[in-house]
Amino acid sequence: MKHIGIALLGLGVVGSGTYKILQEKREEIKKVYDVDAEVVCVLERDLSKADALNIPRSMVWNGIEEVCASDKVDVVAEFFGGTRPAKDFLAAALRAGKNVVTSNKELLAKHWKDLEEAGKEGNACIFFEASCVGGVPVIRALEESMQGNDIKELYGIVNGTTNYILSDMTLNGSDYQSVLKECQRLGYAEANPAADVEGYDSTYKLSILSSLAFRKHIDYTDIKREGITEIAQADIAFAKENGYVIKLLAIAKNGADGVEAHVHPVLVPSGHLLASVSGSFNALYVVGDNVGELMFYGRGAGMLPTGSAIVSDIIFSATRERKVRYPFITSENEKVLSDFQSACYLRFDNKDKESVIKALNAKGVKYEEKATGEFAAFVLSAISESLLQSIIEETKPLGYIRLM
Amino acid sequence: MKHIGIALLGLGVVGSGTYKILQEKREEIKKVYDVDAEVVCVLERDLSKADALNIPRSMVWNGIEEVCASDKVDVVAEFFGGTRPAKDFLAAALRAGKNVVTSNKELLAKHWKDLEEAGKEGNACIFFEASCVGGVPVIRALEESMQGNDIKELYGIVNGTTNYILSDMTLNGSDYQSVLKECQRLGYAEANPAADVEGYDSTYKLSILSSLAFRKHIDYTDIKREGITEIAQADIAFAKENGYVIKLLAIAKNGADGVEAHVHPVLVPSGHLLASVSGSFNALYVVGDNVGELMFYGRGAGMLPTGSAIVSDIIFSATRERKVRYPFITSENEKVLSDFQSACYLRFDNKDKESVIKALNAKGVKYEEKATGEFAAFVLSAISESLLQSIIEETKPLGYIRLM
Repeated sequence: MKHIGIALLGLGVVGSGTYKILQEKREEIKKVYDVDAEVVCVLERDLSKADALNIPRSMVWNGIEEVCASDKVDVVAEFFGGTRPAKDFLAAALRAGKNVVTSNKELLAKHWKDLEEAGKEGNACIFFEASCVGGVPVIRALEESMQGNDIKELYGIVNGTTNYILSDMTLNGSDYQSVLKECQRLGYAEANPAADVEGYDSTYKLSILSSLAFRKHIDYTDIKREGITEIAQADIAFAKENGYVIKLLAIAKNGADGVEAHVHPVLVPSGHLLASVSGSFNALYVVGDNVGELMFYGRGAGMLPTGSAIVSDIIFSATRERKVRYPFITSENEKVLSDFQSACYLRFDNKDKESVIKALNAKGVKYEEKATGEFAAFVLSAISESLLQSIIEETKPLGYIRLM
Repeated sequence: MKHIGIALLGLGVVGSGTYKILQEKREEIKKVYDVDAEVVCVLERDLSKADALNIPRSMVWNGIEEVCASDKVDVVAEFFGGTRPAKDFLAAALRAGKNVVTSNKELLAKHWKDLEEAGKEGNACIFFEASCVGGVPVIRALEESMQGNDIKELYGIVNGTTNYILSDMTLNGSDYQSVLKECQRLGYAEANPAADVEGYDSTYKLSILSSLAFRKHIDYTDIKREGITEIAQADIAFAKENGYVIKLLAIAKNGADGVEAHVHPVLVPSGHLLASVSGSFNALYVVGDNVGELMFYGRGAGMLPTGSAIVSDIIFSATRERKVRYPFITSENEKVLSDFQSACYLRFDNKDKESVIKALNAKGVKYEEKATGEFAAFVLSAISESLLQSIIEETKPLGYIRLM
């Protein structure tokens, strides 16, 4: 039986969940996977957290140096979040030849190249199933199930907080600010919710997923980003009346002209599977040239779902041969197309209707006029992003959402 | 770079698709996976099929003995279908130390134990991602992504032909017999459609999936099975009127009392994701105690989707360490519970209504009466299967379908 020694960096929610799962499933994992996965140490300043898990003080080590120097540690699992000190700690671990497991999407989006270089030096590897779509095995699928495919497209709901907010606005008619407050009260959203509601978290994940899928490094800063902060009940009402559901989607395509990658709200037809993905659930479509459309659905966050993905990576790291794996990450960033095509709904004050029509006609844009309560709404047929932006600048809509 | 030599047994639709994918992606797979996957021989009596793929005659070998004896062959991929000669050929290959890749669900459902024993003898392994839900990586997920979970439940649409028929009956109002004929004309259904429409194919797949998930051998003959042949437009109409969609589901649960496993039509609430899975698409829910609900969706069959899964297994077999993997398969079959609970809809001639009510009352069953066109319909609250069967025997409904 293979023995692997595990260091857990941080005993927050997911770190504690991971420890619990490893304890609870240790015997079963031995039996099924022929691997004895043992937590040998933790780094955690708040000793009460170790106490709460009955982790003896002798297992609470002093710092990353001790972890890196120990031949008892094979895998380092990180739960700090953010980039400091996660980046330095994990780079040190990789250089010391320890495999690294993390759910830290921000770290990967910002410093994957550095970690990959550190892994090369130490002949060690980063595993990050938990970084995207929580417990749902999308990373494993991209790497270990689509070897016979060029991946053409990825799209889906990759942030649970914004999906919870949009679902609640849709199902209960709540307004954005009050749902957000409720989310903060329940711990679903941070005190500073910008990473979620402004779409940053989704761009981190899309950067990781599209880089893996297209085998080119898609930098998160090159991903066009719009959040959900401007969505009003009038937009939700329009969506309902016209057979749509509003979702924040992360979208990446690898077409003949190059790669496009963008995060923004989308009007999804109500018969589409993504329209039925509610609450904090996530779902990702992956389209391969041979396998066609695949879709993966499940919880995108949470102590046990994320812990499940971390444990999966720990066991997987112990049962696979290949080591350094992402040569494309350390080459140049792929250029992301700034222009892409989409149809779009725009909402205006009724009094501005005539001037909007004039502007649309002047630009030669095809559109359909739609009434929506006290507002005037137009659905523009698919146009380039640059033309859409020029229309938005000129007509200043009260709201706009792209169509799927 | 690791070189693997591949033997393809049979150049039917999926065998040819697999060959095409391997040729087309060979260089990319070398680059990304550090594996050179080369087809070194095929077994195919119809030489025109080899010619159509420009496979030289020197690569068309004479029989399985030649394949087993060759040290050029590392992996044998089988595309014969059925159990003869597939079972003997693959057992021979495993004994000769060749890994085996197959999409043959019938073979696995009927002879997995024998193949596992042969694999033990030869220290070789069976890979069968393509056997269930086509190109969708559900096997990989069960084995390589849920190590930190006890799997509690599996359910979903695992047969594309029956889903196509039911979707067409629902969307276009066609009757069962005429859609079936259309399916046969298009090649979606066999001349003898029993394996699909009677639910056998779904029981094969559920046997494989639930055995893997629960790590106990669930024999396909122990799975209760009902097909879709009795579903009438009146049932479809009832479903529509009452917010349901009829789907053929494969369901397995590992509860405190034991394992239940059954295949039959189900009334799925129209807001449920499975209700939106149309045409020949498949979808499988997998519920783990830590990760919660996962769902996997995609094409359950077809030349390239199935070929994609076969190629994935070939590459995976070349990049993983562990060998013989299914000790539970060679131990005793798990006892499957004969009784389980479900709510059920039953449809009767209007004239029989009073006698049905009398019978239901006599058995103390709670029910709701529903009108559906010219028929009388009742929805019984959840009762045991044995009680349901006794009611069906006594009241002889024109149709009945369990509720989700």
